[in-house]
Amino acid sequence: MFPKESGVRQAEIVAIGNEVVSGLIQDSNSSFLSLRLQSVGVNVTRMTAVGDDETSIRAVVQGALGRVDIVVVTGGLGATHDDITKTVLADMFDSGFKKDEQVAKFLQSFFEAKGREVPASVKTQWEVPIAAKVLHNEKGTAPGLLFERDGKKLYALPGVPLEMEYLFDKYLQPELASSSEFGIWHRVLHTTGISEADLWTRIGPVAPLEEFVTVASLPSHLGVRIRLSAMDKKTEDAGARLQAAENRVRSKIDDCIFGTDDETLEGKIGELLLQNKQTLAVAESCTGGLIGHRLTGISGSSEYFLEGAVTYSNQAKHRRLGVEEELLDQYGAVSREVALAMAEGIRKTAGADFGLAVTGIAGPTGGSAQKPVGLTFIAVSDANQSECQEFVFHQDRGRNKERAAQAALNLLRLRFVNECR
Amino acid sequence: MFPKESGVRQAEIVAIGNEVVSGLIQDSNSSFLSLRLQSVGVNVTRMTAVGDDETSIRAVVQGALGRVDIVVVTGGLGATHDDITKTVLADMFDSGFKKDEQVAKFLQSFFEAKGREVPASVKTQWEVPIAAKVLHNEKGTAPGLLFERDGKKLYALPGVPLEMEYLFDKYLQPELASSSEFGIWHRVLHTTGISEADLWTRIGPVAPLEEFVTVASLPSHLGVRIRLSAMDKKTEDAGARLQAAENRVRSKIDDCIFGTDDETLEGKIGELLLQNKQTLAVAESCTGGLIGHRLTGISGSSEYFLEGAVTYSNQAKHRRLGVEEELLDQYGAVSREVALAMAEGIRKTAGADFGLAVTGIAGPTGGSAQKPVGLTFIAVSDANQSECQEFVFHQDRGRNKERAAQAALNLLRLRFVNECR
Repeated sequence: MFPKESGVRQAEIVAIGNEVVSGLIQDSNSSFLSLRLQSVGVNVTRMTAVGDDETSIRAVVQGALGRVDIVVVTGGLGATHDDITKTVLADMFDSGFKKDEQVAKFLQSFFEAKGREVPASVKTQWEVPIAAKVLHNEKGTAPGLLFERDGKKLYALPGVPLEMEYLFDKYLQPELASSSEFGIWHRVLHTTGISEADLWTRIGPVAPLEEFVTVASLPSHLGVRIRLSAMDKKTEDAGARLQAAENRVRSKIDDCIFGTDDETLEGKIGELLLQNKQTLAVAESCTGGLIGHRLTGISGSSEYFLEGAVTYSNQAKHRRLGVEEELLDQYGAVSREVALAMAEGIRKTAGADFGLAVTGIAGPTGGSAQKPVGLTFIAVSDANQSECQEFVFHQDRGRNKERAAQAALNLLRLRFVNECR
Repeated sequence: MFPKESGVRQAEIVAIGNEVVSGLIQDSNSSFLSLRLQSVGVNVTRMTAVGDDETSIRAVVQGALGRVDIVVVTGGLGATHDDITKTVLADMFDSGFKKDEQVAKFLQSFFEAKGREVPASVKTQWEVPIAAKVLHNEKGTAPGLLFERDGKKLYALPGVPLEMEYLFDKYLQPELASSSEFGIWHRVLHTTGISEADLWTRIGPVAPLEEFVTVASLPSHLGVRIRLSAMDKKTEDAGARLQAAENRVRSKIDDCIFGTDDETLEGKIGELLLQNKQTLAVAESCTGGLIGHRLTGISGSSEYFLEGAVTYSNQAKHRRLGVEEELLDQYGAVSREVALAMAEGIRKTAGADFGLAVTGIAGPTGGSAQKPVGLTFIAVSDANQSECQEFVFHQDRGRNKERAAQAALNLLRLRFVNECR
């Protein structure tokens, strides 16, 4: 966090909607907006959510405009009777309404393309406050609005994430970036496979890092993110400070870092496989398809991901992967031996360079004294060698599956890291 | 939303933490708390997030205490230098600190069990404000606090979701329920496979429903949720009103509703298969394993889910599922013919009662004039018949995958629904 005295511009975000304040949906817009505003040098100091209620909206927006120069409101711009954001803001800015011809034309062609008349409720969307600049929304029926007064900007954006993101990129991003004196830059280092305590034991004291940057350490069940932040005037080089800090961290824990900023573990796997012109096939038991889902979330993954087998039953492990029935009988489906046989089986039957396999007990039932819930074996196999790691995860079914998928992808990643050494 | 005049108690939620207001993590605590507070007849009117900053915390908490009788604060109770919630609140309530022996004993035994001394930083956790009631937290090192003044309650809970939820159940739930005159009950009806506009055309005007309940309609890319809410004094039967409203909705759109409240589509599929003692196998191309992941998210799914095949390459479709190469050549991998062959292939090779298959172009690349991005074929096959449906999804890769998985599970569900007719 950067204090107001630093000269960084301050903003507040206001989410409007009964569905948010009643807990029915989680407001993901506010965190998106905060991150994106920081990238153009604007620091968010407060987020507020209120229902579709005139008194509350008025009080919260007035309060925000009293404290900061930039306020971004999301939600309540739709065409149903609940949505009152537009009329409340117009009233606050003493504004009447007029028909916006560009919005009207867009809505007419939007519905024409569907072979339909513009519904009566949607027609209200082309009535816009005279006092506002219209932010034209080609992704939906609700235009955004910008009110300005006394050097303060009030943006109103639709609550649908896709439309909100579109209007941010189209209007707020360029407008705010061009008027920015300060910027706040971040570098996030994503780690996995090591506890937060062990990570910081390896990195050492935080003080030398804080000479360059602000440091945040953010653990989750899938790994620890380290966020380095630097604020600077445009002309100075915050990037160099971030790089110096990143280098220092990497000199201690480079092998634990799978990516930076928006990079993902599955994306990194894809890069490594493409670089090496190698292919992958996956055999999943307890993860049930999650590893395949993550790998195929990457556009272009068909270049290296050949196939996955979700061999949930023992018969499927035997028939699809050639895991011998005696192995299953002797050691059980959740065992080092079966994990290795699955990894080798999927590699060979798919004709892939790498086979990756997971077998475990996701829970909450199915555990025993010898094989507790959370016990998971993960194996990776290539033409030269096969290896298996054992884990015990202590979370609920969903998180145990997520941890197993993360650990499996990381085991494959480490195969490349170790080969480079 | 229920207005203040109705006599329902009002609460506000305040999330404290730089990581929340800077957008680095999403605050899931506030929506949890809002839903749970409603279940004990407390309506949340505002949620606010601020950083770990004394002036902001003080202003937000004072503001909330001025508007409502119940304020729940989460976050900032940890033992690092960032965490200042405890000292700010103690100062607001003119309170000094004292050592709490019960917290001290708990922390000593907590670290003893790990064979460690209590770290110096953690020792500050047993220093509690004299003015507060301590909410003993057996799930972590930070106790919760309850301050009371002028009939107003201020709860401070740790930000770790597990600990926050634990303390809510242990203290807030019983305390607030026992003093509740009103309760708010909800029934959520989950629909999929129909647009919001078409859904409400079939249901008809909302007015007759609103004689019983409050109605909210919540569209997402996976379907529309209809939430019915009823507020009542304890002694009256809000449940009967919800049931009457639900019956009225079901009489119009029962086939579109796959579940209520916490029910999921994959859970419903599981129920139907178990009831009919039938089994399922899935062949996925563009969804990449997501259907298998969702099905295996249900504990006990091994009873009916035999296996999944993520046949990403044409070779895999041929080798694993027996899809004929001529079919792939003639119609292409994304075609009705191949979807049907995949569904039949996975059903027969897995020995399952049902085969479910998806093939499509998730995007953003890979589309053509004849076969645009988003084109998806979904087929279901049993011993008697096979059928295929065609979709075109217009979202990004991730959401197209999610929509395809949802549509596939729904196609299977409808097979059961239609058989019952």
